[in-house]
Amino acid sequence: MNNNFDAMKESFFTDYIRSNVPLTDEQLSTLLEKSKVLALGRKAFLLSAGETCCHRFFIEEGAVREYSIDRHGKEHLLHFAVEGWFLMNVESIFFDRPSSYFIETIEPSRILLLSNEQVNRLAREDKSFEQFDRQLLYEHIHTLQLRITGMQSHSAEERYLHFVEHYPEAMLRVPQQMIASYLGIAPESLSRIRRQLAERHFR
Amino acid sequence: MNNNFDAMKESFFTDYIRSNVPLTDEQLSTLLEKSKVLALGRKAFLLSAGETCCHRFFIEEGAVREYSIDRHGKEHLLHFAVEGWFLMNVESIFFDRPSSYFIETIEPSRILLLSNEQVNRLAREDKSFEQFDRQLLYEHIHTLQLRITGMQSHSAEERYLHFVEHYPEAMLRVPQQMIASYLGIAPESLSRIRRQLAERHFR
Repeated sequence: MNNNFDAMKESFFTDYIRSNVPLTDEQLSTLLEKSKVLALGRKAFLLSAGETCCHRFFIEEGAVREYSIDRHGKEHLLHFAVEGWFLMNVESIFFDRPSSYFIETIEPSRILLLSNEQVNRLAREDKSFEQFDRQLLYEHIHTLQLRITGMQSHSAEERYLHFVEHYPEAMLRVPQQMIASYLGIAPESLSRIRRQLAERHFR
Repeated sequence: MNNNFDAMKESFFTDYIRSNVPLTDEQLSTLLEKSKVLALGRKAFLLSAGETCCHRFFIEEGAVREYSIDRHGKEHLLHFAVEGWFLMNVESIFFDRPSSYFIETIEPSRILLLSNEQVNRLAREDKSFEQFDRQLLYEHIHTLQLRITGMQSHSAEERYLHFVEHYPEAMLRVPQQMIASYLGIAPESLSRIRRQLAERHFR
């Protein structure tokens, strides 16, 4: 058992994994080999566009966003993640290509950088872990599809209310202009929607 | 070797699979057990919202779309697929839940209905097939992410030009109002964009 595992043994991540997959201490230790934990301030970059990243990120504490910058310099939020969520750049992790996205902390955060090599190794060797990893892919696909359908078919107010309902904690912690970007709503429209909802609610 | 496999032995699908994964005749036969081929006219339903589907669809010929209908009765295109593409309902196939989407032919089509049970069975038994299946998931995630980023950051004209460049054949075969829906553009805006592009091109 390596030191890395000893340090991580009682972490949020090991609890999380153990509650999802019946891994032995040795398997967990293998998984955490080559991984590291970073304590970061606000607005720290985990990945910049153009870089290729070999880590999957697990948020132990804090909040992180993945975003692109268009040719007019405007930022667009692809994903956000808070405690207990995974985040990774798909181009790097799945296709070994440079990322077109940035990954940055929104709050002071503690992030586990999980070695993708070790994740794949364990998935090859352990059926239940492979299944767990695959399940995360399925859920990711489903979330992305729902988001596209939502962008096509729901009004800005409906999308905002859906967000509030499903991510109540993120709503309090992710800045408004990022939520607007995530929902594909202009920031000023989101302000108007929030005002109208407040008026209706308190009338 | 079953009759089903004998009938399918020289099909587009078997060629396609063989060029991607080194399967034996026996493995291919297992994969095609419980599968069937449907020859369908235009506007035939492969799946309706509310149904749970245990098949993955491989388009041997023709074109198919997956779409939702919102509460105002408006249709929204989630995916389309032409020859050589897979299409499936994620809710049914991954989560065994009723679909919220419809899957319907756009043209007269020949569709292979691949048993999901047999796909999963082969993926459990054969490493290279599991890897191939996983690769399709990765590509699907990547396409969905690019689409969201495109919806957030590109103008309607840019999105249309990107579509024309990447799906030239679909552009000729998928009706304009479906392309507009796929791109998240109002049909009248797409008409205007096409007119402006034509004017610019022929000036």
